[in-house]
Amino acid sequence: MEKIISSPRNQHVTAALRLRDRRGRDQQGRIIVDGARELLRALQGGIEFLEVFYCSEFGDERECDQVIRALARTPTEILTVTPEIIRRVAYGQRTPALVGIATRPTRRLKDLALSANPLVLVLESVEKPGNVGAAIRTADAAGASAVIVADGHTDLFNPNTSRASLGTVFTHPLGEASSQDTGTWLQEHGIKVFAARVDAEQLYTDQDFTGPVAIVLGSEASGLTPLWHAEDVTPIQLPMLGTADSLNVSAAAAVLLYEARRQRSVGEKT
Amino acid sequence: MEKIISSPRNQHVTAALRLRDRRGRDQQGRIIVDGARELLRALQGGIEFLEVFYCSEFGDERECDQVIRALARTPTEILTVTPEIIRRVAYGQRTPALVGIATRPTRRLKDLALSANPLVLVLESVEKPGNVGAAIRTADAAGASAVIVADGHTDLFNPNTSRASLGTVFTHPLGEASSQDTGTWLQEHGIKVFAARVDAEQLYTDQDFTGPVAIVLGSEASGLTPLWHAEDVTPIQLPMLGTADSLNVSAAAAVLLYEARRQRSVGEKT
Repeated sequence: MEKIISSPRNQHVTAALRLRDRRGRDQQGRIIVDGARELLRALQGGIEFLEVFYCSEFGDERECDQVIRALARTPTEILTVTPEIIRRVAYGQRTPALVGIATRPTRRLKDLALSANPLVLVLESVEKPGNVGAAIRTADAAGASAVIVADGHTDLFNPNTSRASLGTVFTHPLGEASSQDTGTWLQEHGIKVFAARVDAEQLYTDQDFTGPVAIVLGSEASGLTPLWHAEDVTPIQLPMLGTADSLNVSAAAAVLLYEARRQRSVGEKT
Repeated sequence: MEKIISSPRNQHVTAALRLRDRRGRDQQGRIIVDGARELLRALQGGIEFLEVFYCSEFGDERECDQVIRALARTPTEILTVTPEIIRRVAYGQRTPALVGIATRPTRRLKDLALSANPLVLVLESVEKPGNVGAAIRTADAAGASAVIVADGHTDLFNPNTSRASLGTVFTHPLGEASSQDTGTWLQEHGIKVFAARVDAEQLYTDQDFTGPVAIVLGSEASGLTPLWHAEDVTPIQLPMLGTADSLNVSAAAAVLLYEARRQRSVGEKT
């Protein structure tokens, strides 16, 4: 008979709980993923789960079945647990049927495979995990080639990031690096760099985004570091016309990436 | 000597606490606003506060002074309270120095003053208060003439809405109405209506947004109601190229409103 884990002192449970802190994730080198949809995206993105907590009393049945079937083709251990345990292990207020543990993926710049005419989004020191996740979701929808998180303040695999990204943090090509290394990498790949800055004079709509291009966005509070004031970086202005005088980073990413998309598709037609 | 409110049973405190629920807000016909920045925006937007809770131990001093000075020119009662009371009255995890109570503003369509060539954003049945707020912030930045919340599921003055809007919910021209009334109003004002739909065939970039235009966005989960399938409504497609296959409503608003902006500014130059 299948054993159902009901003890909060079970070692799988206590190890999983420690993954709720960044320190625990860093120490164990593991990440924790909540919910059927995010697990599916993670599997789709090549993540191999070490173990998955499962409680049949929650979640969307069809989605759960899909995950369980996908996991059956892997060596992942499925741990059946009581409602109390899944509630304890899960993040935030939702209670998902599935919570997975995996080795933290590495996202090195040198592993990024680029298309011939890449469109890259660079996020420098964006503060909130949710904002990083939302910007990755936007980049995914806009068909960006890759997102590079430069000088990331937040853990890329923070549960808030993956939730706000709708799981695209697992499927979208990503790189993590210092701003310095990111600049060098972009240069080496012949990618023209545009940096959104409030003091820029040239409008984003007057730029040519049809070639290999990177768009750099910084923190809402403090903007970009001086590295992105280099001569080969073109500062661009995204006009803010209202009283709040700012756009959320994922909204700014949406405007700039879709403008690049628009220009590129005009090129395709001619 | 100034009396400092320290009792959680004080009637101002208990009345304020009831405003944390939509039911309480509906019953009292009042709203509650947290934090110096949001209070400033509300004052800027013409909101008259009935009373403001104040605790000098929190918040940004300069911003607080600004609010206190602005309130001194109004009949608003300032209630000095202990840290315990402000923590109790305030929303969420932040502890602001100031929490204000005001009569709920009305936002009727017939009170909207339109420019000669309006650009209107319509949000139909958008589920989360935070998404409504983020879309209003985006519309503000994009210089939209007005935002109409049609068949709103959420309370427009929910604290999550005003926070996500960075307070622009108080300054930006807004209307609340049924979808039916919104459609009629747009027609009466000669505003051409574009509705973002996943099944649309025409790209948003192939449309002419230079005249009086409304852009309608629906709920992420269920899309738009059949009202927006009328003959005089042009369905438009915002291409989704990634795996998640969706854009957050404020990111979609950003792309469409800034495309309208771009087209209109091209017109200005010629």
